[in-house]
Amino acid sequence: MKYARQNLSWNKWGWKNKSFNLDAKKEALLDFLAQALEVDGIRHTPGVALEDMPLSDVRLSEEQCLALTEILDAERVHCDRFERLFHALGKSYWDVVRLHRGDVPAAPDAVVYPVDAEEIVNLLAFAREHHLAVVPYGGGSSVVGGVEASAGKVAKAVLTLDMTLMRALISIDEVSQMATFQAGIYGPELEDILQERGYTLGHFPQSFEFSTLGGWIAARGSGQQSNRYGAAQKWLCSATLVTPHGVLETSPFPGSSTGPHVNAIIAGSEGAFGVITEATVRIHKLPAVRDYRGFLFKNFELGVHAIRHMIQDETPTAMIRLSDAPETKFFGAFKKLGKESTMTQQVAKQVLSWGGFHSEGQCLMLIGLEGDRDQVLHAQAQSHAACLSQGAIPLGSKTGHDWYSSRFEMPYVRRILMEHGFGVDTMETSTTWANVHHLHEVVAQVLHDAIEQRGVCGMVLTHISHCYKTGASIYFTYVFSRDVEDELAQWQEIKRAASDAIHEHGGTISHHHGVGLDHTPWMQSEKGDVGMALLRAAKRGVDPYGVMNPGKLIPEE
Amino acid sequence: MKYARQNLSWNKWGWKNKSFNLDAKKEALLDFLAQALEVDGIRHTPGVALEDMPLSDVRLSEEQCLALTEILDAERVHCDRFERLFHALGKSYWDVVRLHRGDVPAAPDAVVYPVDAEEIVNLLAFAREHHLAVVPYGGGSSVVGGVEASAGKVAKAVLTLDMTLMRALISIDEVSQMATFQAGIYGPELEDILQERGYTLGHFPQSFEFSTLGGWIAARGSGQQSNRYGAAQKWLCSATLVTPHGVLETSPFPGSSTGPHVNAIIAGSEGAFGVITEATVRIHKLPAVRDYRGFLFKNFELGVHAIRHMIQDETPTAMIRLSDAPETKFFGAFKKLGKESTMTQQVAKQVLSWGGFHSEGQCLMLIGLEGDRDQVLHAQAQSHAACLSQGAIPLGSKTGHDWYSSRFEMPYVRRILMEHGFGVDTMETSTTWANVHHLHEVVAQVLHDAIEQRGVCGMVLTHISHCYKTGASIYFTYVFSRDVEDELAQWQEIKRAASDAIHEHGGTISHHHGVGLDHTPWMQSEKGDVGMALLRAAKRGVDPYGVMNPGKLIPEE
Repeated sequence: MKYARQNLSWNKWGWKNKSFNLDAKKEALLDFLAQALEVDGIRHTPGVALEDMPLSDVRLSEEQCLALTEILDAERVHCDRFERLFHALGKSYWDVVRLHRGDVPAAPDAVVYPVDAEEIVNLLAFAREHHLAVVPYGGGSSVVGGVEASAGKVAKAVLTLDMTLMRALISIDEVSQMATFQAGIYGPELEDILQERGYTLGHFPQSFEFSTLGGWIAARGSGQQSNRYGAAQKWLCSATLVTPHGVLETSPFPGSSTGPHVNAIIAGSEGAFGVITEATVRIHKLPAVRDYRGFLFKNFELGVHAIRHMIQDETPTAMIRLSDAPETKFFGAFKKLGKESTMTQQVAKQVLSWGGFHSEGQCLMLIGLEGDRDQVLHAQAQSHAACLSQGAIPLGSKTGHDWYSSRFEMPYVRRILMEHGFGVDTMETSTTWANVHHLHEVVAQVLHDAIEQRGVCGMVLTHISHCYKTGASIYFTYVFSRDVEDELAQWQEIKRAASDAIHEHGGTISHHHGVGLDHTPWMQSEKGDVGMALLRAAKRGVDPYGVMNPGKLIPEE
Repeated sequence: MKYARQNLSWNKWGWKNKSFNLDAKKEALLDFLAQALEVDGIRHTPGVALEDMPLSDVRLSEEQCLALTEILDAERVHCDRFERLFHALGKSYWDVVRLHRGDVPAAPDAVVYPVDAEEIVNLLAFAREHHLAVVPYGGGSSVVGGVEASAGKVAKAVLTLDMTLMRALISIDEVSQMATFQAGIYGPELEDILQERGYTLGHFPQSFEFSTLGGWIAARGSGQQSNRYGAAQKWLCSATLVTPHGVLETSPFPGSSTGPHVNAIIAGSEGAFGVITEATVRIHKLPAVRDYRGFLFKNFELGVHAIRHMIQDETPTAMIRLSDAPETKFFGAFKKLGKESTMTQQVAKQVLSWGGFHSEGQCLMLIGLEGDRDQVLHAQAQSHAACLSQGAIPLGSKTGHDWYSSRFEMPYVRRILMEHGFGVDTMETSTTWANVHHLHEVVAQVLHDAIEQRGVCGMVLTHISHCYKTGASIYFTYVFSRDVEDELAQWQEIKRAASDAIHEHGGTISHHHGVGLDHTPWMQSEKGDVGMALLRAAKRGVDPYGVMNPGKLIPEE
């Protein structure tokens, strides 16, 4: 099986043996970073090997382990070092640092791989009876602590439910354009099944290769082409959620007014309400045409203006990404790593500067269009006009194609940075159009300041990635030199300062990463006392004893 | 004030002195119905006058009434006959029958008109202290018993909060295309404010003139142009909900993944969770062009096929309505009431029949397009092609224009029927495309059968009115001769039979009318035990003592 855990890295992103294809560029990248972050010399900071990882004892008795093998086949119950460490944490910056340093707070006491809802019903009853916490685990790609094997305040041990054996297509309704899958299916498996039949779900987050349908729904994820295909709560038609209180099945009515939409509670439930076992999703005919192109703007404001007009004038785009000047500059440099500028490039740069395009201001926009030929042509004309009216230069389709073909690769770069004393993390938010510039400026500045608190330099790269009629998401990537003596404090200071700034200046604490453990400190202030009372009460209604993913999404009281 | 209660009918739809402009057609309509329903002679069944209505005593003490005048000005506290009867019921068939017969189960003991959230906070505290039920009331246009002045199982009296003095624009953000209003504003007032500035919300339900922003959200309503502007939960950006547990304010983030979306609980909350006092909504530039046209299909299947292809191929329509053959025939006859067919019409009918268009099968479709000129032209080309490929005949824009100009008038016809022994009620549902024909046929047949149980004939008219990629709504209108000796049983038999059929055959119990009291018997089976546990728990979280609209949405235990 392709996604057998042995094929994947237990402590880093992605495939076990894959690394970002930097070839000879690796040294150049490290030199570039060292220079940009004003670091003297590259450090070598290797990670701790699996066999050297400290690991606490299993807190389940032999009888309890035996009982588990009565609920599901013994070969689907694991208490070994590899499975426990593989499932100890997710893929957040802080998770990866801890795995790298050999500093894992807890690991699941057992990892089980259910194959149907009935096994899960029995597992939840077992967990309740034995005071275990249950952590649902799909691809494990959470970057907010959503799958951390935490027992919370009261559970005696942790049972992680790895959902990835539940990966079948259950049915497809081509008339209604809906498909039903088991929720543990990975992105590429799901798309292969649909694309063979001429359809797509169109949900391609950066984690696409290593995340599952259930995880996308649980975390209310967004794919890179969400302008066209929508975020999870939009394409979710119905779902089955196994809760400690019983099995909840919603119906795929296209529209309904029978009270609050229960799908909207399942979407974003983050394993704290139950385990998503099946989902029916809206599918689309595979687009006949995919057209991805670049445009260069003199500054961020002009780019934002162009996006807002495209979206509010209803230009049907699949994706619009606009990098700010630092990110545009960084990716320009990244592409040229280890290469000398050619004479043509130098001349082009000079000509651009005469036109008002300077590397301190210019911003790259990528526009992705998908659909049938007519639609794409129509959208091309509209989007070109919108960009050109803001003085942008069309860069053609190579820029778009290059981005498209490497769009899932960036997380591998983190491995290299981690081993050489650098850190990289991301944060994201969304806000209204009226507040986009203010929030961008404040948060970028706060990130710089927080990084510099420890006397090191930082790089803050930003882009807009998901667009709505009323506003947009803003995605921050920050790179810094790690304080390996005091990593937790360093990261927490940055995270806290930037998250406070996001919240205080009108942004949501997460646009598509979710809440997990990491964002719970901001939930009360974002949702308000009454909003939290509502969510807590709803959780208690289906999980009265707090078995499900304790401490995630809703802080324990 | 335009919407002062004295200007409106206390027991029928709409303005006090307005009636459907039938002129000389009234007799023709009644004759037509008598013939179609095989009734011998027209009965005269006048309603009971206001002064003759039985009315129970006010169950509040003088001290309690006095205390209310300390929370809000005395002139905004009413216990008189008119205000109590005006607010006793909504506008469902069953409500109107009861008002007509002088058979009102209960009236509010006091009607208060708050002007701000603080007054509502105090009113809810007062209600809690004195064991009163609180019924929020906007336009009172609920057709499912959503505003019935019911005390439920434990409250000692009923306090109705009429929200219509809270009707101000609070702010407008033209950059982010959002506007914030107090929730008691009526549709025409809201649109006037927006349209003056070049914007529209685009929410035009049939009740538009007599329903409010808060009511649209509370009932998860859909406007007739929902294909373009979306249902309430789609255009709702944020809201303020005053609950007995405190004030809940959501934020208008364009996208977020911080757990379940609280807006999705407010939308559909039906006054059972709290009182919606403010809402921020997504607005659109006023469309430059509105194009409404008719098409004639040989049968319903071809029409449904055309709709599905338009929607799944992403033709940007504002509205598509497809009447089935009985409805097409009825409206054809309705237009011609009291007129003789001209020779031209007779020839046209003959020619159509040669082409396979027969009155037993032919179905009228109305397509509404809105947007800028380019968009509309593009959509016109696509929609024409889709209809013509299914053998439809374009009827031009007069058919569309006629419908558009009289689209809010039909409810007035009910007054005339009610006074002449006829009954008319509507039901609506939605289902997936794969199930549309099956559900349509089953429910229409069940309605016929249920009506005929009492030895009278019925007419069942159906149309599709709201379309989605995965399915559509189906709207049934049924007309019958009333059994004035046993009206409740007659109506309940029909309602129960058809609702059971909807539920058993894969439809939602309501697409846009809501739940109220009338649909609660089907909530448990539609939402499931766990779904209901979730909703009950959420309600308890913000309304622990069951003050809010008891028995509506969620049946009392």
